[in-house]
Amino acid sequence: MMDGCIDTHRLEQLRYIYSKTLLNDVVPFWMKFSIDRENGGYFHYLDRDGSLLCSDKAVWLQNRSLWFFSKLYNEIEKNDEWLAAAKNGYEFIKNHCIDSDGRMFFLVDKQGRKLRKRRYWFTETFGILGLSEYAKAANDREAYELALQTYRLIVHLYHHPEELPSKFYSENRNIQSLTATMLLMSTTQVIRAMDVDKSISSDFSQVIDTCIGDIQRYFFKPNERALLETVAQDGSVINTPDGRTINPGHSIETAWFLMQEGLYRGNRDTIALGLQILDASLERGWDETYGGLFSFVDLEGKPSEHVEWDMKYWWPHTESLYALLLAYVITKDDKYLASYDEVHAWTFSHFPDYEYGEWYGYLHRDGSIALPVKGSAWKGTLHLPRLLIQGIALIDDCINQ
Amino acid sequence: MMDGCIDTHRLEQLRYIYSKTLLNDVVPFWMKFSIDRENGGYFHYLDRDGSLLCSDKAVWLQNRSLWFFSKLYNEIEKNDEWLAAAKNGYEFIKNHCIDSDGRMFFLVDKQGRKLRKRRYWFTETFGILGLSEYAKAANDREAYELALQTYRLIVHLYHHPEELPSKFYSENRNIQSLTATMLLMSTTQVIRAMDVDKSISSDFSQVIDTCIGDIQRYFFKPNERALLETVAQDGSVINTPDGRTINPGHSIETAWFLMQEGLYRGNRDTIALGLQILDASLERGWDETYGGLFSFVDLEGKPSEHVEWDMKYWWPHTESLYALLLAYVITKDDKYLASYDEVHAWTFSHFPDYEYGEWYGYLHRDGSIALPVKGSAWKGTLHLPRLLIQGIALIDDCINQ
Repeated sequence: MMDGCIDTHRLEQLRYIYSKTLLNDVVPFWMKFSIDRENGGYFHYLDRDGSLLCSDKAVWLQNRSLWFFSKLYNEIEKNDEWLAAAKNGYEFIKNHCIDSDGRMFFLVDKQGRKLRKRRYWFTETFGILGLSEYAKAANDREAYELALQTYRLIVHLYHHPEELPSKFYSENRNIQSLTATMLLMSTTQVIRAMDVDKSISSDFSQVIDTCIGDIQRYFFKPNERALLETVAQDGSVINTPDGRTINPGHSIETAWFLMQEGLYRGNRDTIALGLQILDASLERGWDETYGGLFSFVDLEGKPSEHVEWDMKYWWPHTESLYALLLAYVITKDDKYLASYDEVHAWTFSHFPDYEYGEWYGYLHRDGSIALPVKGSAWKGTLHLPRLLIQGIALIDDCINQ
Repeated sequence: MMDGCIDTHRLEQLRYIYSKTLLNDVVPFWMKFSIDRENGGYFHYLDRDGSLLCSDKAVWLQNRSLWFFSKLYNEIEKNDEWLAAAKNGYEFIKNHCIDSDGRMFFLVDKQGRKLRKRRYWFTETFGILGLSEYAKAANDREAYELALQTYRLIVHLYHHPEELPSKFYSENRNIQSLTATMLLMSTTQVIRAMDVDKSISSDFSQVIDTCIGDIQRYFFKPNERALLETVAQDGSVINTPDGRTINPGHSIETAWFLMQEGLYRGNRDTIALGLQILDASLERGWDETYGGLFSFVDLEGKPSEHVEWDMKYWWPHTESLYALLLAYVITKDDKYLASYDEVHAWTFSHFPDYEYGEWYGYLHRDGSIALPVKGSAWKGTLHLPRLLIQGIALIDDCINQ
């Protein structure tokens, strides 16, 4: 029902759960185990109990931790320890993680010596997230300029993919990837929200116009109810395992980026597109047998190429929770609350580690733990904290309206 | 007991099982579903029932199928259909899979248009396997010359890794990989066995000397009972998830390459090294809870970086069976037969698909099927056929001795 009443009691209950998870389980874990006070930057290869598995520093994770501590300071409380933790990462990133061409390294060692750089500019998108949020927290113009400069570079590369080496010979297989579009969209939303220079805010919105257009024209197939990860340049389906791949977590993340943009613009069509992608992707991704979301599914129900396709990762679940909460708040439709509750129950009964804090990230299909680590080259301080911090803000907005 | 009696009854029974599996389950599947009679080459993205999942052609798999059909012709029976199937791949590989620099592409489309080339020369090693075996089957000097030319290229690249782009900045993380060493060793054994030009056979053996030396000096840690996948240039352990990774399947494959070399040379030390690696790797890799071999384990028992670490793949099992059979035949020690029987029981009760033929490749830890495909970008016609064809030959040699 589109014009129902919001269940404010449920939202208050959720706010309590989010706040408790954030402040009791998540923040203490990363404050205690991730900050490298000797070299700067953040450790993130962390075992179940927080012990260090490796001292190398993936720059995705440096950037995400910078975002995390800055966001905490900006949104939750002006806690100087959080700001200091952010600054500890900012100096490390600025001094060690940026190459002379303005792009970022992918991996450095604990002292910040470069180990690896990748052809994709995804590390940079997380850099922009972190630098923007830090600029706001520390009121640091230099950090904002660095974010903006990096942002301009990735916008350029989005439009000129030929400037970076590609995996495929493009004369024979010219593909485009949803990851680039969704990351550019989200990154643009974050840097635009810093609101530093109003004269360029319409430039940001134009970039997002392009992203929304690309999603609609190329990646989303409404008749098949599928948002695809990889399509041909003209948007046609490539009949290979890659071309048929749906990543439900990515799709649902994209759905809430769209809903959020619709809200910002007051544009019902963009909200509707987000809701449509959310509905379709949950249907595609939910495991009716064991519950939880698959990591990869095939457009035609054929076997995935990913051997780990049926594993349950934490992040598609946190993305789904935020998307469903947002859908509920926007539409007031009880079906989204019911769906939220189903995903919430599975998520909160499988991922949290009540003994050592933080969440497990990698479960088998049946929900048993596959890897006990709390941090890896991929799992860090973005998805779960983002759900919790943004969820709290969304609930507050909704209740105080 | 080193001087026990061979259980010839068990070996005859195994010969029967191998032969039946090869001729009833494996060969018909690939003859029926993999041969692209229109474009040449081989399909290999095959679903459980043989239906086509994708018409792209990975060159690893083209090369391995060329090896398979040629090896069948050379070892099992002079069947013209097998030779024709080999020729069908040879022409495709020669015309479409080799780049102008002598290296091979990694992926082409069904018509043979180049799609992808990788920085590693592993595709080429499978090319040498296939071309050598085909040269013998078809008595084709051109194919042998192509194999030899490709072989010379990879030997050069083994000694000059700096000529290919590396993932890591070598001034800060200079690593070496077991994969290169073990593949070069095996490839050299195969091309040497063609015995075309005796004047260069000592060149081949010198290359193998280098590989054995590198395994002993750098990759094998006898005190830790571990063959490592990646070590520093001086052989020291790199304390990262990658640096601590043991791949039991790889290790056990390396073990039988060594035993085989020891037999060829009549060198007890090389056999002993192979046996030591086999014992250590089985101990490391065997899952005491569910049976079967893990895909990746950590040197210190820490969590693996590979989310799929506990999955059971077909190929570590076929490699173990061949290694244990060889160990038993060489040593006549009953412990290897007992070990063989344990791995055999698990393997033959989990991987074969008695309904559609061929074997499943990708199981969950508990042995349930994760992916029903029979062929993928990695699974094709090397590991299972090699066990069966070489196993039959080994048993014949042993019984007829």
